[in-house]
Amino acid sequence: MESFFTFLEKRVSDCSSLLCVGLDPHLDDLPSPSAEAASAFCLDLVERTARYAAAFKPNAAFFEQFGAPGWTALKNVIAAVQEQSRRLGSLIPVILDAKRGDIASTAEAYARSAFATMGAHAITLSPYLGRDSVEPFLAVPEKGAFLLCKTSNPGAADLQDLLVDGTGEPLYLTVARLAQAWNTKNNVGLVVGATHPGALARVRQSAPEMWFLAPGVGTQGGDLEAALKAGLRRDGRGLLLPVSRAISRAADPGKAAAVLRDKIIDIQYRLGN
Amino acid sequence: MESFFTFLEKRVSDCSSLLCVGLDPHLDDLPSPSAEAASAFCLDLVERTARYAAAFKPNAAFFEQFGAPGWTALKNVIAAVQEQSRRLGSLIPVILDAKRGDIASTAEAYARSAFATMGAHAITLSPYLGRDSVEPFLAVPEKGAFLLCKTSNPGAADLQDLLVDGTGEPLYLTVARLAQAWNTKNNVGLVVGATHPGALARVRQSAPEMWFLAPGVGTQGGDLEAALKAGLRRDGRGLLLPVSRAISRAADPGKAAAVLRDKIIDIQYRLGN
Repeated sequence: MESFFTFLEKRVSDCSSLLCVGLDPHLDDLPSPSAEAASAFCLDLVERTARYAAAFKPNAAFFEQFGAPGWTALKNVIAAVQEQSRRLGSLIPVILDAKRGDIASTAEAYARSAFATMGAHAITLSPYLGRDSVEPFLAVPEKGAFLLCKTSNPGAADLQDLLVDGTGEPLYLTVARLAQAWNTKNNVGLVVGATHPGALARVRQSAPEMWFLAPGVGTQGGDLEAALKAGLRRDGRGLLLPVSRAISRAADPGKAAAVLRDKIIDIQYRLGN
Repeated sequence: MESFFTFLEKRVSDCSSLLCVGLDPHLDDLPSPSAEAASAFCLDLVERTARYAAAFKPNAAFFEQFGAPGWTALKNVIAAVQEQSRRLGSLIPVILDAKRGDIASTAEAYARSAFATMGAHAITLSPYLGRDSVEPFLAVPEKGAFLLCKTSNPGAADLQDLLVDGTGEPLYLTVARLAQAWNTKNNVGLVVGATHPGALARVRQSAPEMWFLAPGVGTQGGDLEAALKAGLRRDGRGLLLPVSRAISRAADPGKAAAVLRDKIIDIQYRLGN
């Protein structure tokens, strides 16, 4: 069965890359605070980095801050990725980093927004509302969802690290277990910060087959080798590494993406994968 | 100090109401699946129900599903509430039900979107990412946030009911405790489903002074009297009751809102407040 992760695996093979290029038009990075500037910033990044990108990850917040014109910009940026996919003859998945999470009929509306209206292939979701808040996003195997599990920010400890009574394990491992139970169509992944290699290793042990989205190796300071060592599956895949500012703020973003892609390959090789 | 909750308390006094009118343009309720129809649906509801509404609560998903035009509609709907506030000489707060939750600089962009770009007065947030995902929304006392605590859907049990080791208490009570610690500017509330009066009573006991947004008394079937008994503060306030379809699908939404408002007053009176 074709599913979101069969598409992603194919793309990873086509470009020999685990790099996920983040499309985060921070106000600081734009010549003017406008949706048009955000769009231009992202379109340039997409064009320069597409051949090295296993996936693109636009963060909805940086478009939403501009209101309606921001959503037009987001749609254009996703369309530009689809154009690059056609040019390269290889589908580059778009993961909309939206961290949504709402109950049944509302979750359906969010799924319609991300997949049908915007054209994204996957979305990030918060697990706090449980199964019926996630299911509407998983109805079609070709569309996927990454559930927040252990995030890369300081506040992650407030809830995610709490030990669940009777299991002796932190809450984030319960999320990893639930995500696997809900993954009946090969379209559920997890978000696990690369800034906590110890936690990454524990989630990998608990979910040996899942794909992880592991932010934090760029500006947030996570160690790339430690993250790969902790997070790769036994087949040397299963880990997408989103990088935003370390690419977009480089003098030559295309070159920065190529260098990062190759650095990841070197480490994979050294780790024996 | 003026804060989101001093505005809300003032409005509750002005209209003698704890009713929060939900603005949820479900596709099923629209003559055509368009942002224009969603906007017309909500503008009509706002006009008919404003005098009975302690607050309005548009759910972002039902606008977002239309892409950019949906965000234009949302902005128009919020502007219409502001217009009614001027007409009635009493500020009716708009709580954007968006259930956002992302890390620092991204949370800032979401706060900019909800408050500056859209003009909402408060927002609903997921607590899963912890303190630094919530703080950017609390920077200005006049703008508020309601954190998801114990939600009204079946999946709420998956995470929220898990017992936290060492406390013997469910996770949702930890969230109630954290929310109080973060509430240094009188602008943090909680979302606690009216469908679980037992849980509502426990959260009230744990957070005696906070405002709760308690969905579930309309179509979801929660018992209004049980919810009020469990959730009201000792001063007979502190509980906002969002109702969407039971008002919007009534033959006369204005009358339905008035009847509900009065029914709540009767129960408050009977409960001795």
